Amino acid sequence: MSRIPVTILGATGVVGQKFVRRLKDHPLFEIRHLAASDRSAGKTYAEACAWRLDEPSYGGLGDLVLRGANPGEAPAPVVFSALDSGPAKEIEPLYAAAGSWVFSNASAFRMEPDVPLLVPEANAEHIALAKTQQATRGFKGAIVCNPNCTATVLVMGLAPLHQAFGIEKVFMTSMQAISGAGYPGVPALDIVGNVIPFIRSEEEKVEEETPKMLGTFASGTVTPAPFAISALCHRVPVVEGHSEAVSVALRGNPTPEAVIEALKSWRGDPRVTTLPSAPPVPIRLHSAENRPQVRLDVERDGGMSVHIGRVRRCGLLGIKFALLGHNTERGAAGASVLNAELAHAMGYIG
Amino acid sequence: MSRIPVTILGATGVVGQKFVRRLKDHPLFEIRHLAASDRSAGKTYAEACAWRLDEPSYGGLGDLVLRGANPGEAPAPVVFSALDSGPAKEIEPLYAAAGSWVFSNASAFRMEPDVPLLVPEANAEHIALAKTQQATRGFKGAIVCNPNCTATVLVMGLAPLHQAFGIEKVFMTSMQAISGAGYPGVPALDIVGNVIPFIRSEEEKVEEETPKMLGTFASGTVTPAPFAISALCHRVPVVEGHSEAVSVALRGNPTPEAVIEALKSWRGDPRVTTLPSAPPVPIRLHSAENRPQVRLDVERDGGMSVHIGRVRRCGLLGIKFALLGHNTERGAAGASVLNAELAHAMGYIG
Amino acid sequence: MSRIPVTILGATGVVGQKFVRRLKDHPLFEIRHLAASDRSAGKTYAEACAWRLDEPSYGGLGDLVLRGANPGEAPAPVVFSALDSGPAKEIEPLYAAAGSWVFSNASAFRMEPDVPLLVPEANAEHIALAKTQQATRGFKGAIVCNPNCTATVLVMGLAPLHQAFGIEKVFMTSMQAISGAGYPGVPALDIVGNVIPFIRSEEEKVEEETPKMLGTFASGTVTPAPFAISALCHRVPVVEGHSEAVSVALRGNPTPEAVIEALKSWRGDPRVTTLPSAPPVPIRLHSAENRPQVRLDVERDGGMSVHIGRVRRCGLLGIKFALLGHNTERGAAGASVLNAELAHAMGYIG
Amino acid sequence: MSRIPVTILGATGVVGQKFVRRLKDHPLFEIRHLAASDRSAGKTYAEACAWRLDEPSYGGLGDLVLRGANPGEAPAPVVFSALDSGPAKEIEPLYAAAGSWVFSNASAFRMEPDVPLLVPEANAEHIALAKTQQATRGFKGAIVCNPNCTATVLVMGLAPLHQAFGIEKVFMTSMQAISGAGYPGVPALDIVGNVIPFIRSEEEKVEEETPKMLGTFASGTVTPAPFAISALCHRVPVVEGHSEAVSVALRGNPTPEAVIEALKSWRGDPRVTTLPSAPPVPIRLHSAENRPQVRLDVERDGGMSVHIGRVRRCGLLGIKFALLGHNTERGAAGASVLNAELAHAMGYIG
Repeated sequence: MSRIPVTILGATGVVGQKFVRRLKDHPLFEIRHLAASDRSAGKTYAEACAWRLDEPSYGGLGDLVLRGANPGEAPAPVVFSALDSGPAKEIEPLYAAAGSWVFSNASAFRMEPDVPLLVPEANAEHIALAKTQQATRGFKGAIVCNPNCTATVLVMGLAPLHQAFGIEKVFMTSMQAISGAGYPGVPALDIVGNVIPFIRSEEEKVEEETPKMLGTFASGTVTPAPFAISALCHRVPVVEGHSEAVSVALRGNPTPEAVIEALKSWRGDPRVTTLPSAPPVPIRLHSAENRPQVRLDVERDGGMSVHIGRVRRCGLLGIKFALLGHNTERGAAGASVLNAELAHAMGYIG
Repeated sequence: MSRIPVTILGATGVVGQKFVRRLKDHPLFEIRHLAASDRSAGKTYAEACAWRLDEPSYGGLGDLVLRGANPGEAPAPVVFSALDSGPAKEIEPLYAAAGSWVFSNASAFRMEPDVPLLVPEANAEHIALAKTQQATRGFKGAIVCNPNCTATVLVMGLAPLHQAFGIEKVFMTSMQAISGAGYPGVPALDIVGNVIPFIRSEEEKVEEETPKMLGTFASGTVTPAPFAISALCHRVPVVEGHSEAVSVALRGNPTPEAVIEALKSWRGDPRVTTLPSAPPVPIRLHSAENRPQVRLDVERDGGMSVHIGRVRRCGLLGIKFALLGHNTERGAAGASVLNAELAHAMGYIG
Repeated sequence: MSRIPVTILGATGVVGQKFVRRLKDHPLFEIRHLAASDRSAGKTYAEACAWRLDEPSYGGLGDLVLRGANPGEAPAPVVFSALDSGPAKEIEPLYAAAGSWVFSNASAFRMEPDVPLLVPEANAEHIALAKTQQATRGFKGAIVCNPNCTATVLVMGLAPLHQAFGIEKVFMTSMQAISGAGYPGVPALDIVGNVIPFIRSEEEKVEEETPKMLGTFASGTVTPAPFAISALCHRVPVVEGHSEAVSVALRGNPTPEAVIEALKSWRGDPRVTTLPSAPPVPIRLHSAENRPQVRLDVERDGGMSVHIGRVRRCGLLGIKFALLGHNTERGAAGASVLNAELAHAMGYIG
Repeated sequence: MSRIPVTILGATGVVGQKFVRRLKDHPLFEIRHLAASDRSAGKTYAEACAWRLDEPSYGGLGDLVLRGANPGEAPAPVVFSALDSGPAKEIEPLYAAAGSWVFSNASAFRMEPDVPLLVPEANAEHIALAKTQQATRGFKGAIVCNPNCTATVLVMGLAPLHQAFGIEKVFMTSMQAISGAGYPGVPALDIVGNVIPFIRSEEEKVEEETPKMLGTFASGTVTPAPFAISALCHRVPVVEGHSEAVSVALRGNPTPEAVIEALKSWRGDPRVTTLPSAPPVPIRLHSAENRPQVRLDVERDGGMSVHIGRVRRCGLLGIKFALLGHNTERGAAGASVLNAELAHAMGYIG
């Protein structure tokens, strides 16, 4: 069976390279075009950037000539976008208008009311927003977003609790990896031996994207979940993986044991379980008192599962726990690919 | 005027060395004895341990012969204790019974109802608990404790808000330095490139010590402050300095501007301001959006001030901010010395 | 075909765990016993230690009851030893006398003239020393050592040059990972943000083991290679992987191009190429001007290949280059397993 | 007595800020102008950059308006240059021609035969090259350079040995701090948990600057010292301070004891000892087997002394030792200021 051709927008950056690695041998998708800024278009992939991942270099596509990032030069029915927010705002609608399904890691359209913001295990049904989007905007294709990396990990941890109990309040303090800032990103002089209590716009993104993702889809719109949320975001000298300290108020004030049971038994949306990029289980629950730990745990399952440990009583909200997830896999490239696989499984593309 | 002789218990450890450095040229106190475990007693200070601080080595006392840690072998009217909790439980009362004022960094007696748990700028009046202690226990001297390092920093940040508004709820997520675990302490294999979401007993200490410190002293006892508190503690790969992400519910729900003003104008207990180890101001308020940062800020004022920045709205409790303090100076050796200076200024010793 | 039963000595430590991971699904060997100190014997593997590697925990052997480390309690025809040098000195000969082939990571017997010190790609023929050993010591089995981790990596880089040109002088400055010191090993307070220009006995080991390994086997003995060597060893804040800066004087003073060609074409001893743990190529040659880099390259090929880059003129010795290898895989557990595979392939065991 | 007015070129960068900090209360010099690129000129110092050092911010000069970097807009008899090499090549001669003495940290003119490349303790007499320079180039002032940071530290360690014995060969492997690359400099993603075996042009600079500095001045020219040298440079995750592993062949092959004695007794050029920025002793000799260590030792003496330890036999060249120095103090800003103090003491300026 032939695979669906895809274009990767922003293929030269850190997330773009992760798209290439994930898609070079994908069972459903086949890389047709790598696209980049006008500055890089016309160069080979190997000339245009330094490959930053493991072997094989450039996913074996070092000789592919980069195209311009537009539907005329690099058309495909499915597009993965690792563009920055500015270019994404302009380019992604051109593709959607031209009929492509755009799976975007950019923040540009995440909070648009007609754009699905997906964590498939948690809210696969939100993908139906794409129909609203096509109706409203006259797109033949659609734009489907994955959330901010910190919010993605948080939603993975919250979804089973929201489904089992209902969330009333959420507190989240993050300790985020440097890879989240892209490349060159954070100067070493800023972060070696340091903690930076500020990441621009990060707290706002977490606080607005999370309720949207855990919201209810009905009649073509998503009503955000009505819980209060506060995020406090930090950068720490860790290469990959966001650690999050989470406290939640849950309806009915369940015991830690009940919470552990809800997390342990959760498998997420059944349409997701068998997708090629889905992890064996969405949540890895740790029983050791000092786990999960980012350096030891975050690469498991190709970074697609999240990790929870230390579920315990919180004197303020009822339950607190340690949460961990992979910011550039589950929180970026892997997320978009999983979204596309979901869209395919649900008959939207292909 | 002659200085008061002091004994340092546990002089060979990290905190013990910091006591030596702080006391070798102190205007009020003069090191008379360095005391250590029986294993080390009889050796010179230089033989018994490796000096881990800057020059001069061993505070110039490398040739001093270590004494046994008991009032018979190493008597002094003022004692600074860097003992571990186990030995402290046994040895500190012997000194207090024999008439010494023991300023202890150990956790052994912190939560005893008749033992002052001091952060002098915040609760200098609690020192009067020593009289209750003397009456109850028949001590001629007394035991005065400084709190857990994380709790110390937190109380410094909360005290002005408790005094100005009244605290109703506190959320605190810490990112703590490796020096807090002593030496050898945390194995490098555990923490390099990592975040560990667990420090044994740390959350419990913060949650019980903080309300005691911010409690009310009357009629010989301290009534803990009645606020709810939740602490989530982490180890991060930072050498010195604890970063804390704090959210508070304050009575009357003041604006960030009002909170900033309360922090800025706070000078702490006036009896503390002129003590030799007191910092110029107890709180350094930062206006840069990404400060305080532990590597850049924590050594200021000899580590005796704490740092606050990013005072902003919290969607859950009302106010959140970034807090930073020095765990082995303000949170350990410097704290005990400041306590002793306070006791001296208030006429308890000397 | 049935696999050969093996005992792992010192199974609870860092290297012991790596033995377990490498051997749990090995095509030739089957774990029969895990052995540990008397303190741990009788406990299950899971009770006796904390598993520090990735999943599955304890290699799936968490319920196996540990045996005492002696041929009576934990016999097997093949033994892998992750013992410390002291116990190794006593226990390994007991096994060899009892008929076991002991593949040891310990330093105890490395420099004994009748003990093979193997890097199979470089000196497979040295294994014949085992016959001398059996004759001399009356062993029915034998002790076969792998070298110090730093020396292993160095020999991998030097062997092709020694074979192609002949080495006259070697300069090696190492920047070594913290994992090389075991667990708990290096205290974080010592190494975070630091470089330590001293590792006990390391320079001596490199300087004496390297000439033995590159020496000539004839008439039942090994004559060390006659080159002069100087090693300068450092610990740096890296988790896994030793970086080495190497300069060599080669006979005939070849050009960098000739050296690169010699490295690139080298495949090592042909008897090694097809062994289960052998890497696809022994040396990965990098052309990027800033590679190899330990964090990016060291895990390739399961850590069994070494990496070389920046081959260039040295104003002093003629040629200098950057060398990198995995200290706990190629330099420890993987090395011993490869030695055993070689012994099996050459008909010594099984 | 009135102080000599100075201009700081490139005041907004890391080294520029260190110039400001060193000169704001200097006994001989008084900051008259801060100069920067045209883009920054006209802004206040506080507007034009973020202060990256300790308090007081901007050396108290945050309100000073930046001038253009040329003798017309920012004239002064003494100029300190923290310019990049490109602008330095153009701007520094303009100042020298206009009569200023330019003390430059840039690499642009270091290897010009008529430009003094000073490490004052080692080669103060080279400053007389300035007269050759004035004669050749028609300058009324002069350009005086300090060397590359790595070379500076190396020359401090080699000078006493060259004077006592004569150096024949030098091997130097560096482990360099990230601050050496300026700001933003090295991306955190490149260096956290890593070692990079390449720093552009660094090995070449060390290999050509070192012999010039240790060369002989006579008849208006410097004849480079005739020893062979090889440098292997690495970046490691350390914030400040370059560690260097050094081996030397010395004439007469002295013992380690004789070398230690030569290092211990060396005080450097007597004209330097009393300069305001000179350290108490130029070399701090360590006896502990694992010192010097960059995190513990490099800030001593304001970073102006260098540290040596582990002097021992080298099997190849005769003597090897561990060397350490502060790359942005002794290797940059402090070096230029010390050069200017020397020029003043020798009557060249003021």
